[in-house]
Amino acid sequence: MKFQSVKGTRDFYPDDMRLRNWIVDAWRKVSLRNGFEEFDAPIFEYLDLFTIKSGEEIAEQLFSFTDRGGRDLAIRPEITPSLARMVNARINSLPRPIKWFSIPRCCRAEKPQKGRAREFFQWNIDLIGSDDVLADAECLFVAIDGLRELGLTKDDVVVRFSSRVLLTEVLRNFGVSEEDIPRVMGVIDKRSRLPEDTFEKLLTDTLPDDDARMGTLRFLNMQRIQAEPAESIAAKVGVKVTQPMVEAVGRLRTFHKELQAFGVDDWCCYDTGIVRNLAYYTGIVYEIFDRDESLRAIAGGGRYDNLLEVLGGPKIGATGFGMGDPVLGILLSEKGKIPDLAQPLDFFVIDGTDGTFENVIRTVGALRAKGYSTDFSYKRQSVGKQLKEANRRGARKAAIIRGNMVAVKDLMTGEQEERPVEDLLNVPGK
Amino acid sequence: MKFQSVKGTRDFYPDDMRLRNWIVDAWRKVSLRNGFEEFDAPIFEYLDLFTIKSGEEIAEQLFSFTDRGGRDLAIRPEITPSLARMVNARINSLPRPIKWFSIPRCCRAEKPQKGRAREFFQWNIDLIGSDDVLADAECLFVAIDGLRELGLTKDDVVVRFSSRVLLTEVLRNFGVSEEDIPRVMGVIDKRSRLPEDTFEKLLTDTLPDDDARMGTLRFLNMQRIQAEPAESIAAKVGVKVTQPMVEAVGRLRTFHKELQAFGVDDWCCYDTGIVRNLAYYTGIVYEIFDRDESLRAIAGGGRYDNLLEVLGGPKIGATGFGMGDPVLGILLSEKGKIPDLAQPLDFFVIDGTDGTFENVIRTVGALRAKGYSTDFSYKRQSVGKQLKEANRRGARKAAIIRGNMVAVKDLMTGEQEERPVEDLLNVPGK
Repeated sequence: MKFQSVKGTRDFYPDDMRLRNWIVDAWRKVSLRNGFEEFDAPIFEYLDLFTIKSGEEIAEQLFSFTDRGGRDLAIRPEITPSLARMVNARINSLPRPIKWFSIPRCCRAEKPQKGRAREFFQWNIDLIGSDDVLADAECLFVAIDGLRELGLTKDDVVVRFSSRVLLTEVLRNFGVSEEDIPRVMGVIDKRSRLPEDTFEKLLTDTLPDDDARMGTLRFLNMQRIQAEPAESIAAKVGVKVTQPMVEAVGRLRTFHKELQAFGVDDWCCYDTGIVRNLAYYTGIVYEIFDRDESLRAIAGGGRYDNLLEVLGGPKIGATGFGMGDPVLGILLSEKGKIPDLAQPLDFFVIDGTDGTFENVIRTVGALRAKGYSTDFSYKRQSVGKQLKEANRRGARKAAIIRGNMVAVKDLMTGEQEERPVEDLLNVPGK
Repeated sequence: MKFQSVKGTRDFYPDDMRLRNWIVDAWRKVSLRNGFEEFDAPIFEYLDLFTIKSGEEIAEQLFSFTDRGGRDLAIRPEITPSLARMVNARINSLPRPIKWFSIPRCCRAEKPQKGRAREFFQWNIDLIGSDDVLADAECLFVAIDGLRELGLTKDDVVVRFSSRVLLTEVLRNFGVSEEDIPRVMGVIDKRSRLPEDTFEKLLTDTLPDDDARMGTLRFLNMQRIQAEPAESIAAKVGVKVTQPMVEAVGRLRTFHKELQAFGVDDWCCYDTGIVRNLAYYTGIVYEIFDRDESLRAIAGGGRYDNLLEVLGGPKIGATGFGMGDPVLGILLSEKGKIPDLAQPLDFFVIDGTDGTFENVIRTVGALRAKGYSTDFSYKRQSVGKQLKEANRRGARKAAIIRGNMVAVKDLMTGEQEERPVEDLLNVPGK
């Protein structure tokens, strides 16, 4: 009987795992230095938690099941609903703002394709309890700090940000109904992944009024410019200026100013076409792409001020992002940013004469207990062959035991030093 | 709408997460210094992979589901079957012995109780491609090295080892049929968790023959002695000596000798009652307990020479163990072994005068980019209140900005030093 892995999942052989750990370690290190604390939630939750607010796309991609107790459960497709549940449960005792991060394994029953796996790791940064645009800017700074830690620069990636409030207000001013707005946004979100004529057809289906559609397209074509004053946008698009528009533009401009203070504004540009496909976003949103735009988004995030309330908690401001490992891994590899991740051994212990193998084990046990990474050959074979194995394993030093003496050989320089085995057993801890 | 977590799962708030990371980091560090490489597999696999050989107990505890493509899948209850699948897929290209470790999240639909969660993390050490007892001894050494790294001593825990071959052979010699042997072993495995009269009743049900039952009980009561020669065991138990018995006892005695060479024999004792509840074990097996025996097993492992073959690969020797985090966490806490896990900030940046907040953000961005863990207050409040927040966050230094000058205050010693903000922005990277 031959077994295969399930389509869309990944096996992490040691080489793959070293790469995954390198990425995850960078995410963790950067989160901590930005003042965020790590949390995690269960990998499965009640199904309802994920269907109530995440939007249709995520609900369709759930791996759901019923347990023996008849409970409807699902493997998490994202961690934000669990975060909201956990924060709600301790809302009165947690000092605010709550700055938390997580690196959950998530599963979505998506069609596997380049940069999309059915199982992936997603770095999440969330800041809860502040309505300040500064919170949005800080989260985005952390995302950029993470990419920078992994060796990427502003020549490799670009952040595109916009405001869902502003787009909503433009659509509203064109007379689009509240229930049609999410459908129109869904189409706009797909734009970059569709041929232009397919996009226009879909947009005409959801936005049949010519004036509204043309005006919306004019709005969307204001891409890559820093947000203009609300009056100017309104005039170009052909709608009247409203107070929510003025406020949304004000927040966009403050956001840019704070990204400047953080020193990362040159990684970012304003792009009216950014919508985010999760139904819970309520304010500034952003996505990060490779500069060549050959891949899907590396990360996406924004403000979600209603989620905690919808999940039974208070109305409280929240903002954050998620960054998956699949697209990022491809980009790092394409850009040649992945360093040598070998984990060399400190010592490789060899029996240089017959009958000293027990001494090898004793030495191995002692060195490991002192913190030195140490290994030995399972084959009783010539010193030459054992040295070959030591080199294959990337050992820094070989310890060749002959009776009660040991020759410690530096495998980089070839230098060798002879001393009693007891000396080596008594080396100070690493 | 209020949401709860699912019974038997755990939320990891930052305090819980720091503890989990401390344990996981120790497991990873110890694995690497013992020459093992990390791997991981998907969290769900085809259901068959888990039901074919793991035994009834695990099969009953699976979280299984059918995906949209009609595939029967299950969340992993353990990682060993996935390991066997992955090794089989590359059996001709992997140098042997294969020394791999993993720290998978696993799920079992068990009744939640002290030390048992429906979702847990399990450290796995596996050595594939060696029939040598040394491989069993090395894996057990790694388990002990891990416990030692976490601060536990031989006064806190005890390893109990035995041989499934020897027990099987004793039962066979008493005329127990091949299909009854696993049932008898299942009863023996439960012994420590049952009242003695319940155990005796269950044993009588599966082993009705008086001679066989009494002899088996005599064998089981040889606990806590180093394995005697086969002849002596046979005489005491009342069976004839067979070649498999002689060999099994020989391996037990070699095992002990190698634990001695590794320097950990005083953590271990021979215990005929250790069986392991997984059907795939074939040789020496062991479990690790707290000395007070107030908790369930901390870890368990042993040799499983048939698993790769059953899963479509070659017949190849394999041995290893699994150690879960729930029981270990309880023991570490009860023994007071958990250190202060706070992650202090390097800097907390404060606006000492009005209008310098943009300079605070600039300083925070620059320090973080240089690797210093740095944070600031979201509230524009007095320096005193911000210093209080800095102390609550465990910051080492406060940087109080007044115009273009910054006072860097050591929060441990109270020492303070004034310099231009630009100086602080130009500190060397951490």
